[in-house]
Order: sequence, then structure tokens, then C-alpha cells
Amino acid sequence: MYSIGIDIGGTGIQLGLVDEQGRIAHKGGIVTRTDIPFDQQVKAIADCVLETIAASGHSVEDISSIGVGVPGVVAPRTGHIAFCNNLGWKDAPFREEMQRWIDKPVHMDNDATVAGLAEYHAGVSAGTHSSVFITLGTGVGGGIVLGGKVWSGFHGVGSEIGHMIFEVDGEPCNCGNRGCLERYCSATAIIRMAREEVAKTPDSLVLQMAGGDPAKINAKIVFDAARENDPVGKAVFDRFVRYLAQAIVTIINFLDPEIVVLGGGVSKAGAFLLDAVRQAVPEYLLYKTLPCARIELAELGPDAGIIGAAMLGK
Amino acid sequence: MYSIGIDIGGTGIQLGLVDEQGRIAHKGGIVTRTDIPFDQQVKAIADCVLETIAASGHSVEDISSIGVGVPGVVAPRTGHIAFCNNLGWKDAPFREEMQRWIDKPVHMDNDATVAGLAEYHAGVSAGTHSSVFITLGTGVGGGIVLGGKVWSGFHGVGSEIGHMIFEVDGEPCNCGNRGCLERYCSATAIIRMAREEVAKTPDSLVLQMAGGDPAKINAKIVFDAARENDPVGKAVFDRFVRYLAQAIVTIINFLDPEIVVLGGGVSKAGAFLLDAVRQAVPEYLLYKTLPCARIELAELGPDAGIIGAAMLGK
Repeated sequence: MYSIGIDIGGTGIQLGLVDEQGRIAHKGGIVTRTDIPFDQQVKAIADCVLETIAASGHSVEDISSIGVGVPGVVAPRTGHIAFCNNLGWKDAPFREEMQRWIDKPVHMDNDATVAGLAEYHAGVSAGTHSSVFITLGTGVGGGIVLGGKVWSGFHGVGSEIGHMIFEVDGEPCNCGNRGCLERYCSATAIIRMAREEVAKTPDSLVLQMAGGDPAKINAKIVFDAARENDPVGKAVFDRFVRYLAQAIVTIINFLDPEIVVLGGGVSKAGAFLLDAVRQAVPEYLLYKTLPCARIELAELGPDAGIIGAAMLGK
Repeated sequence: MYSIGIDIGGTGIQLGLVDEQGRIAHKGGIVTRTDIPFDQQVKAIADCVLETIAASGHSVEDISSIGVGVPGVVAPRTGHIAFCNNLGWKDAPFREEMQRWIDKPVHMDNDATVAGLAEYHAGVSAGTHSSVFITLGTGVGGGIVLGGKVWSGFHGVGSEIGHMIFEVDGEPCNCGNRGCLERYCSATAIIRMAREEVAKTPDSLVLQMAGGDPAKINAKIVFDAARENDPVGKAVFDRFVRYLAQAIVTIINFLDPEIVVLGGGVSKAGAFLLDAVRQAVPEYLLYKTLPCARIELAELGPDAGIIGAAMLGK
């Protein structure tokens, strides 16, 4: 049997037939359209699912369930998608609408949670007792898997790691609070810190690589400059690593998972980031002589959303 | 059948026979002695257990297991007590030592965790899907119960809520880090904030109630002055409530339990504290229109340690 995994993004919707080991047998996708009503959006996704099943040489009878990862919040009680701002959905009855076209169980969860689940089934956290997946992107997301099951909390509003308070009365966050963790541990934070630094030290490789325009600084430029030992790049990188290490220790001190997995765009810095984080964490540990979570990079890349969505409800 | 629950404290060790509903049938206790070796400490506890069983009219055959709550850390892999600073224990083989005298299964966990488990079995969080218990005392401790089972993490170092980073680069903590949550949400924090305030505003009810001596300020004085609308007491109380509300929201955003329970000495302020916290939390919630954890006061009081310890391993 196969499951369908659907990864709903702001620009595209990727989906695939996934086998029980988390391997993608066949893929499909459509462009995300926000100019059509919700029911037509879901119909377009359902059509793509049916075409992809047909193109794979299988039939709907070979499909056990459909899983969906959304950049938003799912309300487990109602089975509705509570919020999905990129697509303009609010309290959207996705399951009912999808089942009008394909009569299979439909499971839904947050995209970061789904990526964490993918790593549990087919990636770096395979078979672990407990894992916390951290997406380091424009914001910071989280996925918690305990005993092989997604933990999104009792009300489905958990694993929002990016909005844990990390500096009380600190940097203003889009959510309305101050000092949320994602203001310190995201690509957005790296860019903000780099802009502050280049304002103080204009003669830097960071600014040079951004063509002299602070508005063009991105996280990759900062990390690349840090690799070249540019003082500005290095200062921002070190500060980011120090923040991220303390965020990981916060997760360890609260939930103590077997493994913490770093994913999202910023994690593409690979061993350069991972080695630095692993070196920084021990300083902040509460019990320095006891074992604690190992820290790893996500393995699965862009297919994680499809794989993890297909594994929802397993 | 009964279980034995043992609550190990820095000044006294309380224990009791507890039935399967979490009711204490008979109690005993001894003074904590740190002037004798570990094996004699355990022997004294075992003797008290046996005397308490005998005094209750039962026999060792009526006992299914022994549970122990320690102000420290248990290493689940070895079954040793990794740290218990008050008693001078380090990597202490409590289970083996106890089983020399009483051949029953011995379960151990952190005292805050045990208090949370007691509330799950016989208190305010009875039967909930998931709960986070917060002890607000000299420090801040935590107890996580998920699906009726204690969650202390994979390595047994979790639920250390007091050492989540709450203000990066903030107030120095005894643990060596800066900005730990317990620097903001404990009795110690209340006292520190009050001393800062009375230094600026000497003419306050807080200072008067402390006999004019800032060293004599305690959390109860501050809260009592706040109830009387003393500006200093009120300012510290409001700031504490704002911190605690953000700490609770951090827990909600990460784990999203069904219930958050406030225990420990500071929680004795009762409805005065609870009402203020419940009023402050919504401002900080990420998803203001979705349901989230209810916030309650612990119900069990000083017996929670005995009851929860007896429930370990159930």
C-alpha cells in the first residue's frame, strides 16, 4: 500500500505516492493559486493526486491514506485547518472537501512537524525514542515526535518553538510579542544582526558580497563571509551559534529528546554550522556530566514535506 | 495493594502507604541526616518504611512497589540518583541499596515531576491528556505528565523548566548560565525585584512589613503588600505575573499541554495570583482565537510528594 503525501507551500504544492518505508514512488505538483475559492483549490489538489496515482500505474485502491503538511495550524478537534495565511485559509474544512473527491482518511499537520516526522521515518532521527526538529528559515518552526507519534499538543497549537520567549521584553516579533526565539535563531535574525554590524563596520566582506547594499545581505552571504574569517561575518555567525546553542539547551532542559535535528534553509550551511553548534552547546548544559540529546542535520531535503505528510496517521 | 511513596527533602524524609487511588493510608517520617554515609541513610529510610508498614497493620506482602521523589536528577539508564545536592548524593545506587532491605521494585524521579504526577492521579490534573506542573519556590521546577506517564526525557534530564533560557544574556543563574527562567519566576526573583524597588522607593509597605530591613523581604510580604495596593508590592507583583504569563505561554507554544498547574510556595497566594495570571496570559498567546491549556493551582499540598512517589511506575 501507498500513502499520498501533500506538501502545501506558498508558491507550489508538491505531492507524491509514498511507500511504507517512506520512499517516494511517484511525484506530482501544481502551482499554488490564491485567486480561486477554497473548494476549487482543494479540487485542483485532488485532481493532481488522481493524475499522479494514474501516472504511477497504480489505482486509488492502492492508497491507504492522504496526509497534508500545511504552513499553518490544524485544529485536531474539528479536523479543520485553523490558519494557513499563505493560502488565505481560516477554519478551512480541508478533510471534508478532499473526501468529496477521494474517499480516504485525511491527516493534516503543520509543515515543520511533518518534516520532523519524515526524518523519523526515513531520515536522521529514524527509530529514535523522541526527537525535536527545528526549521531554521525566515522564521523558526518545530516538529516534535515522541514514541514514533507526532506531538502537536492537546489543542494542536504546540511545537511552535519559534515563539517561545527567549528574551523577555526583547526584539519585537510579527506575532505581537517581544523576544520570541525566532527573532534570534532565524535567517531573518542573521540578516538583522549583519545589518547592525555593517552599519558599525562598513568595510566588511559581508557588505562587499552584498554588492555594497545592506538590503541585499542574506544568511548565506553572512555564513560564507564567516567561513572566510571576515570579522563582521564571523561576529554574526558566532552570535547566531551562541543563540542557537542556548535554544537547543532550552529544548533539552524542557523535553530532553533523544535527538535534536536542524533543518530549514539556514541548516544548509552543513558541517560549518553543525560543528560550531555542537561545540557551543556543552557550555550551556545544566548537567554537564550526564548524556543529553545528540544534534544532527536534517537529511531529507525538499522531499521531506511529501514523505512526512504521507506518514501522518501511521 | 499499596505502594510506598517516599519524599526526600533537605530537612526531612516523609513517607507513606498509598492506595491505588492515591490516598495515604498511613504516614511516617525521619529527619534527613547528612552526617552518615549513604548506605546508612538508605538503611534509616528502609527501617522507617518497614515501621510504617507495621504500624499501619499491613505487611510487606501488601506492598507492590516503592517510589522515591528526590530533589535532584535520576539517571534512568543506570537507575542511580545522578545528583541530589541536599543529601550529598552523586551517582548513588539508591535502588540496589534499598532492595538490600526491601525486595520490591523501586522507582525514582525528580520531586517536581513527582508532584506533577500526584496531581495527575489525585489532584487538579486528574485524568488529563497532558499536564505541565510548575513549582514556584526558591527556584522553579517542572513535572511533565503525558498520557498518564511521567515524561522526564530520554536521558532523564528534562522538565527542568527553571533553566529554560528566558532572557538571553540576562540575570546570572546558580547553574552558570544567564537568563534562566527561574531568575524571573521564583520567590527568589520576587525578593530580588522587591529589593531593587525598595532601594528606589524606600517609603513602601513592603519595607515596613519587612521591619525596615530589605534582607527580611520575602515573597509573601510582597504579595501581601500588593493585595493592599502598596505601589512597590503592586509593581513587583505585576512584573512577576507578566513574567509568569510569558513562561506559561512558552510552555503552551512548545508542548501545548491540556493543563498547566502552578504549585510550590509562591502558588499559596491562591486566587490572587491565579486570577492575575489567567488575565495576563491571553495577551501573549500566539493563536488568540484557538483553545489552549487551562491554568490551575495545585490541590494536594505537602502530601503531593508522598502520593506522587507512590504512583511512579504505575
